[in-house]
Amino acid sequence: MSIVVINGSGREGGNTETLTRLALEGLEFKEIVLREKQILPIVDQRHTPGGFDPVNDDYDAVIQDMLAADVLIFVSPIYWYNVTGLVKNLFDRWSQSLRDPRFTDFKEKMAKKKAYAIVVGGDNPRIKALPMIQQLKYTFDFVGLPFEGYVLGQASKPGDIQNDRRALAEAAWLNDQLKALVNV
Amino acid sequence: MSIVVINGSGREGGNTETLTRLALEGLEFKEIVLREKQILPIVDQRHTPGGFDPVNDDYDAVIQDMLAADVLIFVSPIYWYNVTGLVKNLFDRWSQSLRDPRFTDFKEKMAKKKAYAIVVGGDNPRIKALPMIQQLKYTFDFVGLPFEGYVLGQASKPGDIQNDRRALAEAAWLNDQLKALVNV
Amino acid sequence: MSIVVINGSGREGGNTETLTRLALEGLEFKEIVLREKQILPIVDQRHTPGGFDPVNDDYDAVIQDMLAADVLIFVSPIYWYNVTGLVKNLFDRWSQSLRDPRFTDFKEKMAKKKAYAIVVGGDNPRIKALPMIQQLKYTFDFVGLPFEGYVLGQASKPGDIQNDRRALAEAAWLNDQLKALVNV
Amino acid sequence: MSIVVINGSGREGGNTETLTRLALEGLEFKEIVLREKQILPIVDQRHTPGGFDPVNDDYDAVIQDMLAADVLIFVSPIYWYNVTGLVKNLFDRWSQSLRDPRFTDFKEKMAKKKAYAIVVGGDNPRIKALPMIQQLKYTFDFVGLPFEGYVLGQASKPGDIQNDRRALAEAAWLNDQLKALVNV
Repeated sequence: MSIVVINGSGREGGNTETLTRLALEGLEFKEIVLREKQILPIVDQRHTPGGFDPVNDDYDAVIQDMLAADVLIFVSPIYWYNVTGLVKNLFDRWSQSLRDPRFTDFKEKMAKKKAYAIVVGGDNPRIKALPMIQQLKYTFDFVGLPFEGYVLGQASKPGDIQNDRRALAEAAWLNDQLKALVNV
Repeated sequence: MSIVVINGSGREGGNTETLTRLALEGLEFKEIVLREKQILPIVDQRHTPGGFDPVNDDYDAVIQDMLAADVLIFVSPIYWYNVTGLVKNLFDRWSQSLRDPRFTDFKEKMAKKKAYAIVVGGDNPRIKALPMIQQLKYTFDFVGLPFEGYVLGQASKPGDIQNDRRALAEAAWLNDQLKALVNV
Repeated sequence: MSIVVINGSGREGGNTETLTRLALEGLEFKEIVLREKQILPIVDQRHTPGGFDPVNDDYDAVIQDMLAADVLIFVSPIYWYNVTGLVKNLFDRWSQSLRDPRFTDFKEKMAKKKAYAIVVGGDNPRIKALPMIQQLKYTFDFVGLPFEGYVLGQASKPGDIQNDRRALAEAAWLNDQLKALVNV
Repeated sequence: MSIVVINGSGREGGNTETLTRLALEGLEFKEIVLREKQILPIVDQRHTPGGFDPVNDDYDAVIQDMLAADVLIFVSPIYWYNVTGLVKNLFDRWSQSLRDPRFTDFKEKMAKKKAYAIVVGGDNPRIKALPMIQQLKYTFDFVGLPFEGYVLGQASKPGDIQNDRRALAEAAWLNDQLKALVNV
């Protein structure tokens, strides 16, 4: 069972990453740090004769890693009540993959995985991040990816997440879930 | 009264742009086409001593245009139940502007404007785009920008929007709202 | 094709009813006025040996009328960002019908109908009634009832709805939808 | 510091009540069991000359108890992705209290309290109960009642809640919150 963490954080060592470390403790995983990749905004050629032109950036490598995983953990600080632009550009490019002859089994592969999300924000996220969770659900549903759960934390300044007891309990829950999957 | 349209569409001449043309008919406006600009993902330096480094891209010019406007019209096709990555990266960079000594009056200026949104999607947007509308509300609230209304259309293939009678009625409503503002 | 209007309004002749009259103009329909019926809160006996006791109120007659219809139009003023208690008690009792040997085909029958909603509120309903719309969607999905559309109006004082141009356009849209169904 | 629990459950001893017992363990509180009260649907007389007629049911006693409390804990199983009709009828009647000369300080009193919610549902509540949470927020905001947090559990059959580790952790968190309030 292989785990891939898609890290959409805009800085290193922030609260979202701290919470992710706790959730992944004792587990092997591959981490894709989106801020170290170049993933360009989609050029929407869904209705262009000839379809999408190839794009010369890191997207293909990232999606190959994602498709090879059994578990996908989407990690994002909550910027403006939403995933970061780094994560959003990745999702947007899925529209290209869904029409890519190399990925005709995109949805079939996604359907066999399990997805989790870890998100942390500063402005009342247990209320104001709920639309974001609903969007993730719709997004994963569209590609048939089972959304198995999320960890939602509140933190602003570095280190704050250690004070969010509910988030820490959820991270411990996720850690156990993942360990149970590994041991199946 | 000056209108700025922030166009987050990933292709030219799509349904979102068609609906926007109808809503802006007969009005003068400046259009910022985000796909023709380079707006990099935010590097989160909110907690870095020294704060944010300057970024050499088109963001500054875009935000200056936005701050100079009386009315902001955010235009986005609905990609993955959300604004496009182009729009999201723009919002993310607002976090930088809020800490920029050149923009100490960012919220004061925003509070005097009126914001509208025009969004079009293919997958049951009158249900599945509702979280996106809620996020826009939270986002505009944070900077004190009054969210005066939105136009929500359903369309997939080029030209489809002409069949969405409710969206056309809403665009006509917005057109009248804007004309009333111009004539004050 | 038969239309049943389930009217959950707490007063006669209010804005919600006015908007409903416009949406139903020229059409035959049966109206169930919930405030004139007694529908008791559900006594949850889902896990009681022997199941639900019969309840002596108007619910059975109402559900029989609903099951006999081809189109269901749920009408509610927005009280506290939600359907009225009158409507909620009706929904709650569906849990009883789903276990009622007389209604073993409840979901099959619902799946063949079309549902619409007409809702009117005073406190920024185009933002704050969105959770209510999402709940209606989940509720109808659970029983397999297709949710074909909604009309959302803003009004507080008697007569206000006449000033909500977008709501009037949506009511006209619904009127045409219903007439097209009748003429099939 | 006094705690009032408003229990909107449709049966005795269900999962929602079990979770509430855990959250309140070791604390003194007064419980209002709505299913044992008669609270009639509101007759909307907001626009009637003369205003609301008095209603002869248990509402007045309930609202007096609520207004006397420092902490309000709203407890509801999730029926149809929403609070129960019992709870909804209570909220609806607030519209009457807001116009009641005996309660001119309704909002002032509410503003000094703290509200929590405990909700339990069977159908993916961590996604499908999110609109309900948003509605509670809007409802409490309208009367100025601070919404301090919620406990969200998943359970269907009697006893199920004991298997929802995240809900149990949240109940323990709420228990500590309440004990800290008592000890201030």
